[in-house]
Amino acid sequence: MNYSVTFLPDQITIELEAGKTLLQAANHAGIGIKSSCGSEGTCGRCKVRVIDGTYQYDNRFTCTLPDKHRDSGYVLACKAFIDDNIIVEVPAESRLENHQVLMEDTEGVLAEKNISLLNGYNLNPLSKKIKLSMDAPSLTEIISDLSRLEAELAKQSGIKNPIVGLSVLSQMAENLRKCNWKVTLTLAYNGKDYEIIRIAPGHDDSSCYGLAVDIGTTTVVVSLVNLEDGRSIDKMGTYNHQAKLGDDVVSRMIHSSSELNGLQDLQSLVIKTINELSSKLLEKHQIASDEICIMVTSGNTTMTHLLLGLNPKYIRLEPYVPTATFAPIVKGKDLGLQMNSEGLVYSFPAVASYVGGDIVSGALVTKISSKEELTLFIDIGTNGEIVLGNQDWLISCACSAGPAFEGGGITHGTRAMRGAIERVDIDKETFEVRVSTIDSGKAIGICGSGLIDCIAKMHQVGIIDRTGTFQDTESKRVQITHDDKLFILVWENESGIGKDIHISENDVKNIIRSKGAVFAGIQSLLKTLQLEIELIDKILIAGGFGNYLNIPDAVKLGLLPDLPIEKYEFVGNTSLKGAELVLVSQEAWEQAEIIGKMMTYLELSVGNLFMDEFMQAIFLPHTDLTLFPSVELR
Amino acid sequence: MNYSVTFLPDQITIELEAGKTLLQAANHAGIGIKSSCGSEGTCGRCKVRVIDGTYQYDNRFTCTLPDKHRDSGYVLACKAFIDDNIIVEVPAESRLENHQVLMEDTEGVLAEKNISLLNGYNLNPLSKKIKLSMDAPSLTEIISDLSRLEAELAKQSGIKNPIVGLSVLSQMAENLRKCNWKVTLTLAYNGKDYEIIRIAPGHDDSSCYGLAVDIGTTTVVVSLVNLEDGRSIDKMGTYNHQAKLGDDVVSRMIHSSSELNGLQDLQSLVIKTINELSSKLLEKHQIASDEICIMVTSGNTTMTHLLLGLNPKYIRLEPYVPTATFAPIVKGKDLGLQMNSEGLVYSFPAVASYVGGDIVSGALVTKISSKEELTLFIDIGTNGEIVLGNQDWLISCACSAGPAFEGGGITHGTRAMRGAIERVDIDKETFEVRVSTIDSGKAIGICGSGLIDCIAKMHQVGIIDRTGTFQDTESKRVQITHDDKLFILVWENESGIGKDIHISENDVKNIIRSKGAVFAGIQSLLKTLQLEIELIDKILIAGGFGNYLNIPDAVKLGLLPDLPIEKYEFVGNTSLKGAELVLVSQEAWEQAEIIGKMMTYLELSVGNLFMDEFMQAIFLPHTDLTLFPSVELR
Repeated sequence: MNYSVTFLPDQITIELEAGKTLLQAANHAGIGIKSSCGSEGTCGRCKVRVIDGTYQYDNRFTCTLPDKHRDSGYVLACKAFIDDNIIVEVPAESRLENHQVLMEDTEGVLAEKNISLLNGYNLNPLSKKIKLSMDAPSLTEIISDLSRLEAELAKQSGIKNPIVGLSVLSQMAENLRKCNWKVTLTLAYNGKDYEIIRIAPGHDDSSCYGLAVDIGTTTVVVSLVNLEDGRSIDKMGTYNHQAKLGDDVVSRMIHSSSELNGLQDLQSLVIKTINELSSKLLEKHQIASDEICIMVTSGNTTMTHLLLGLNPKYIRLEPYVPTATFAPIVKGKDLGLQMNSEGLVYSFPAVASYVGGDIVSGALVTKISSKEELTLFIDIGTNGEIVLGNQDWLISCACSAGPAFEGGGITHGTRAMRGAIERVDIDKETFEVRVSTIDSGKAIGICGSGLIDCIAKMHQVGIIDRTGTFQDTESKRVQITHDDKLFILVWENESGIGKDIHISENDVKNIIRSKGAVFAGIQSLLKTLQLEIELIDKILIAGGFGNYLNIPDAVKLGLLPDLPIEKYEFVGNTSLKGAELVLVSQEAWEQAEIIGKMMTYLELSVGNLFMDEFMQAIFLPHTDLTLFPSVELR
Repeated sequence: MNYSVTFLPDQITIELEAGKTLLQAANHAGIGIKSSCGSEGTCGRCKVRVIDGTYQYDNRFTCTLPDKHRDSGYVLACKAFIDDNIIVEVPAESRLENHQVLMEDTEGVLAEKNISLLNGYNLNPLSKKIKLSMDAPSLTEIISDLSRLEAELAKQSGIKNPIVGLSVLSQMAENLRKCNWKVTLTLAYNGKDYEIIRIAPGHDDSSCYGLAVDIGTTTVVVSLVNLEDGRSIDKMGTYNHQAKLGDDVVSRMIHSSSELNGLQDLQSLVIKTINELSSKLLEKHQIASDEICIMVTSGNTTMTHLLLGLNPKYIRLEPYVPTATFAPIVKGKDLGLQMNSEGLVYSFPAVASYVGGDIVSGALVTKISSKEELTLFIDIGTNGEIVLGNQDWLISCACSAGPAFEGGGITHGTRAMRGAIERVDIDKETFEVRVSTIDSGKAIGICGSGLIDCIAKMHQVGIIDRTGTFQDTESKRVQITHDDKLFILVWENESGIGKDIHISENDVKNIIRSKGAVFAGIQSLLKTLQLEIELIDKILIAGGFGNYLNIPDAVKLGLLPDLPIEKYEFVGNTSLKGAELVLVSQEAWEQAEIIGKMMTYLELSVGNLFMDEFMQAIFLPHTDLTLFPSVELR
């Protein structure tokens, strides 16, 4: 039995069979709805309002939404099952916003588009074009077409015994003869040998291009790179379409192993995301997808598994073992990627289940492993990945920071997008609040950097104590509900979502646990190696979160070590940069493989070290104040 | 507009659109009809009798059939176009006979089935099974599943960095855990590296199998080989289904480049032929096709091109250049072969367009290239391929013997099958004839060895002179038509085809030209190297034709050199034997590649050498009788 489902204000109506959820219906209709928990009914992100029609509801999850929302007709889209024609309204805060991420990711980038990616490496791209001119065969010189081509290739470039697949070989005879034995080969290097991916008739002067892809759990960014001069031409980013099926890696892993076709769905969604971005880039720059013979992807271990169709199930289960850390180089056609079907797809090697290719890529491009100085590399997203080391050794760990710094699990948390509160000032007398938002948009929520600033300020003015507990303060902005305490940041009439925006005591404690996990991770690495914090020469902050982070705030919170600000450096999206670098340098790829092998991994769930550190770190800034000498307590 | 086409005596009726030929209709109905010329309308092999209904006829080809056949309603199936409901009768002599070839090819084989194929090589198969037992991962030992497997494989077998494809990798995690970290790997060697083709849970004691395939223009033989002990278990052969579209390589090449989808049709037909044989073999021996991880094919250059979907067009056009002599090793799934889809398919390297992988395979298995003695290797089929050499050098050539020795282009020529005349005795006084047929069947025609014997005898008793010209003899068996002279071998009432079986003067001259081409090829090789015929230590006769060949007859005819019979050896289907050998010996494959590279090719169409030799050789036995001292002239 099919029913119609109409989404407002989009005015999109689709037909769907009874028993599907409203969330599935929305995905079907192309409307991206947040689902942080992966349809578990626990995050409350997917709420929609039923305007007309009835539905079956899984009442166990009724309590996920606050009373006032339930009273206004809101339901969890993931737990409402269609059994009637129905009209639902999707509120702005439940939507995945594509456009804003896209803008955000391209903006910072345009400025650097003329900078070579090589970073000290020699230009030796993974794919190259080579023009050959051969003598035509004659009765006295009758070696096969392929041997003739190989001999000329070896003579001209030194490349011997290239791989040639059947699809290229089957067109070769005609292509050699079309322009009188002049051809342009496109070669791709598979880490060992060259493969002839295309044989184009005539001498083709066009450049050779590759795509670097940063596959984040939240966002995917694709960079189009000119392999002949080693420059990024353009890049575009958007939400990872997988977000429809779960916000973080854990919910994706659950989806992939518990849902029928869950793994295939997730794989298709990330491939769709990459293809959409590359199509746009290639169309914009008038490059045929067939010209793309190489792609380098960088992502955390789960993302890499999902891209390749490998079930990440055992990443989630103790002892947390991935299927592969060094994944095979595959063909574009194996994955359905928008590129030459014979083209090669590299995946950055990973170190362990929770220290993935994105971190190896970061370590590669920041050259930690080729410097004498002791560097601490921190990438904070849903997980916090930390690398410590120098040219002699590298150690890494992953701490479940949770999604709080990306706005997850926080009542009014949001990603860093237009309207996200990024700075908070609180008057220490009146507790009046002034907020700054990204792009000065009407406030829609509070992002990671805003949360850090906010909590630092709340502590500074005495709204919370060192444990994050709300103090008795005379402020109309502090409100008490039956199970939580709230501090109103933006009143309903000034907010962009038609209601108050607040931070609750639970939110504060959530953030403190997150920051405690990151700092405890840093401490665990140092203590394992019996190093003092002062020995760190350089701290590199990677990832999108870093772009908006205020270092002094983060130190005050106890998230980052209390070291001179000169030692800190924001390095941006190193995952993407490493992928770009590998595209243009075979030696960089070799170095990536070396890093993948040399980096040791400290599993924090073994022993008590991490837990002891964590218990000390869930204070503002820390129980051991000697670690934070510069932080003045109130 | 569709019409019905009914075939008698099969009683098969199909519907087909107007404009298709009766030959296409027969193929469609699954009735194999001979078509030596590839629907050119010139061979007359596809004749069928129209019982009822009308058709469009291409009258340019009317003269291909003799008057009396035309008068009885016979037409060329390839030139009669459907435009009505039609009933046709397919006579026995126009049919491709599958069953007889099958029996013929399996019979000789059963006797040798317990003989190891290794022929002095060590057993080191291209595919092998390896059982591994690993420790389960723990929190303190968390390397990825793949790294764990690779480490154990290296420890146990020394095999490092195996290739693993996504389809195997995606099942690996579950397969490792199903039987507590005990698995059986199936590996295939690609000439450089091992690829893991299967990971089966638990320890599997079953053997590892491979298929050797001899792809002849006429027949295809598949041998099932146990790779663990290097023995052939069974083999089966049948007609190459491509024969529907042309009898010889030239007609196949024409079809592949002139017909829409001609190449794909030919590729599908040979793959269908191989799959039918392997299905039967695997079913008979209860082996799953998934267990077959390696296949080695051996065929002439055109057959190898067609198998791989490479257009053989330029093989036919001067200067006769193939696309590849060293074809890539491909996957079963690339070709749709009945085997493990990740399994590897080897194609024997070729030397040139007309000296193919079958000859390299023959040179490999007969060890010409590792002996001091000077060996002449002759494989006579439609083409005659000749190799001369020893451990230091190998030279080869191909002479267009034409299809006469296989019965092609001879009025009552037939392949060596039941009922084919293989011996002829002629009374020198009465010219009465006694024939012996294969399996003592009623005579249906005369096969290659029968033709040789017949002509030798006709010369001996004076029916023909040294040029093959009919002499005036008083015999009712000699008949004269308006354009030819006939010698009746079997009268209508004794024949199996309801009419006289004869050999004509044209047939005799045809055979003399064929034998002349082969002998001229031998002489050309010898003269190029300035060697005397007596220096040849060994003459190896390969191919199905050899099985029925009478050496003294062939010498009398001037087909083979006049050397002591002890120097001759029949080596049978060396193409298949070489493929079997490579399956069980990686070193043999290396040697095959060496042979492919070291063997030089003499193009007989360059210069006058071959033509001069040919002109001398189209006499019985030769113009230079000193070359045939043992042959007594009448």
